[in-house]
Amino acid sequence: MMVKPLGNRLLIKPVVEEKKTAGGLVLPDSATEKPQKAVIVEVGTLDEDCTLKVGDKVIFAKYSGTEIKIEDEDHIIIDVDDVLAKVED
Amino acid sequence: MMVKPLGNRLLIKPVVEEKKTAGGLVLPDSATEKPQKAVIVEVGTLDEDCTLKVGDKVIFAKYSGTEIKIEDEDHIIIDVDDVLAKVED
Amino acid sequence: MMVKPLGNRLLIKPVVEEKKTAGGLVLPDSATEKPQKAVIVEVGTLDEDCTLKVGDKVIFAKYSGTEIKIEDEDHIIIDVDDVLAKVED
Amino acid sequence: MMVKPLGNRLLIKPVVEEKKTAGGLVLPDSATEKPQKAVIVEVGTLDEDCTLKVGDKVIFAKYSGTEIKIEDEDHIIIDVDDVLAKVED
Amino acid sequence: MMVKPLGNRLLIKPVVEEKKTAGGLVLPDSATEKPQKAVIVEVGTLDEDCTLKVGDKVIFAKYSGTEIKIEDEDHIIIDVDDVLAKVED
Amino acid sequence: MMVKPLGNRLLIKPVVEEKKTAGGLVLPDSATEKPQKAVIVEVGTLDEDCTLKVGDKVIFAKYSGTEIKIEDEDHIIIDVDDVLAKVED
Amino acid sequence: MMVKPLGNRLLIKPVVEEKKTAGGLVLPDSATEKPQKAVIVEVGTLDEDCTLKVGDKVIFAKYSGTEIKIEDEDHIIIDVDDVLAKVED
Repeated sequence: MMVKPLGNRLLIKPVVEEKKTAGGLVLPDSATEKPQKAVIVEVGTLDEDCTLKVGDKVIFAKYSGTEIKIEDEDHIIIDVDDVLAKVED
Repeated sequence: MMVKPLGNRLLIKPVVEEKKTAGGLVLPDSATEKPQKAVIVEVGTLDEDCTLKVGDKVIFAKYSGTEIKIEDEDHIIIDVDDVLAKVED
Repeated sequence: MMVKPLGNRLLIKPVVEEKKTAGGLVLPDSATEKPQKAVIVEVGTLDEDCTLKVGDKVIFAKYSGTEIKIEDEDHIIIDVDDVLAKVED
Repeated sequence: MMVKPLGNRLLIKPVVEEKKTAGGLVLPDSATEKPQKAVIVEVGTLDEDCTLKVGDKVIFAKYSGTEIKIEDEDHIIIDVDDVLAKVED
Repeated sequence: MMVKPLGNRLLIKPVVEEKKTAGGLVLPDSATEKPQKAVIVEVGTLDEDCTLKVGDKVIFAKYSGTEIKIEDEDHIIIDVDDVLAKVED
Repeated sequence: MMVKPLGNRLLIKPVVEEKKTAGGLVLPDSATEKPQKAVIVEVGTLDEDCTLKVGDKVIFAKYSGTEIKIEDEDHIIIDVDDVLAKVED
Repeated sequence: MMVKPLGNRLLIKPVVEEKKTAGGLVLPDSATEKPQKAVIVEVGTLDEDCTLKVGDKVIFAKYSGTEIKIEDEDHIIIDVDDVLAKVED
């Protein structure tokens, strides 16, 4: 199934970062904060001056966008305006 | 009964996807999340740059639109702006 | 008493549809959902590109408009923008 | 005391309609719904395309406008936009 | 102390009207409704088409404006748009 | 530390007025209302038609602006639009 | 990891000021107010008339922006409009 965002939207896939306690324990999902980092999977028909593209890593505003499942994996469809920053590792 | 949406609206019919548990059990409706996938049944007088048409499969924002029953089947009248993405299987 | 809507408004009269249970029981009003189908009784000074006219059957957004009684019958004064679709039986 | 509405406003006086029960009992005010019918008493500096004038009977949106007492009688100062329809008996 | 309102604002002083019961009893403040009648004490830099001037009696929307004390007397600084009507006794 | 407001904002310092009871008792802060009088300490890049300047005494809308401490003294950064009036003693 | 804000946004790092009680006790974080002072770490594509640059100290509106952690240190991505003032020590 291919999902193509409409208009000024992006399809992003949250990047879950493992968190370990000081003692080395890996914390399960529910014990960590909601991830705010994601990778762009598909783009809609963005404005010309938008430099975001598939594969970019971004930080997005918490609780923005609409969560959907694609092949059982969590994705988010989000407005470009709710993308706050681009991440370069 | 034919329902023709007015203005920048669509008539869509939610696509209910069966969900099975790992053990093969089919879950009844009330146990699954609200569907967000639908097929377009009728279109209003859309803007020229809108590429959506009858038969397209779309993903729409949860809780958007107005639910109506047509011949006992659930439909939704929804603003084009609340359609988030187009789906290609 | 004649009620003439002002501006971009319509006077509509809800169409109450009888509902029968599988066993043929007619359900009283309070047991059914609020009707969303109505017939246009009067029109205000609508925009030129509006094709709605007296006698059209329409579907309107739940809880929109203002209810008034005319000769003891329920009517609604509603903005044209809250009319979602036109119905053809 | 004369009250002259400013700008796009009207001074209206609600028309209280007596309600009788089937048995002929006149219901006191508190037992009936808030009146929504009024007569225009004064007009502000309305737009040219507004056809409302002193003496017209109108229907107004519930809970709109500001109630004031003039010589112990209830009046309402209301925006023209909150007048929904004109009534002709 | 002189208070000069800025921009599209007025300084008004509420007019408290004594209320007597049928028996001639004067009701204290807390027993009466909030006054909505005031006299204009100072004007800001109003639009040219505004005809309000110092000394005019006006009716204003309840709970609008900001109350301030000037020499221990209650005054209100209010937007011209929250003045509903002019009063002529 | 010097604080320079950005854009259409002012840095103001509330003027606390001592309040004495009839018996001459000075009331402590918590017993009096929030002050609404302030003196302008710094100005941002105001519009040309704004006549406010450092040293002016002003009245501002309650609960507007953001409180900050500068050298342990309370100050407020406030939008020019939330300044209601200028005070001349 | 480098975080580059998009559009009219800044990446800032709150400046935590130690607070000592009169007796010289250093108060832990939870006992002090939320800091409102920060230093600019990265800038987005700001408007030409914006004079803010990396390294500037600023005061920002409480509860504005989105908190993110970069290498375990608290940062905030904030709209330029929520920056209230520039600080010069």
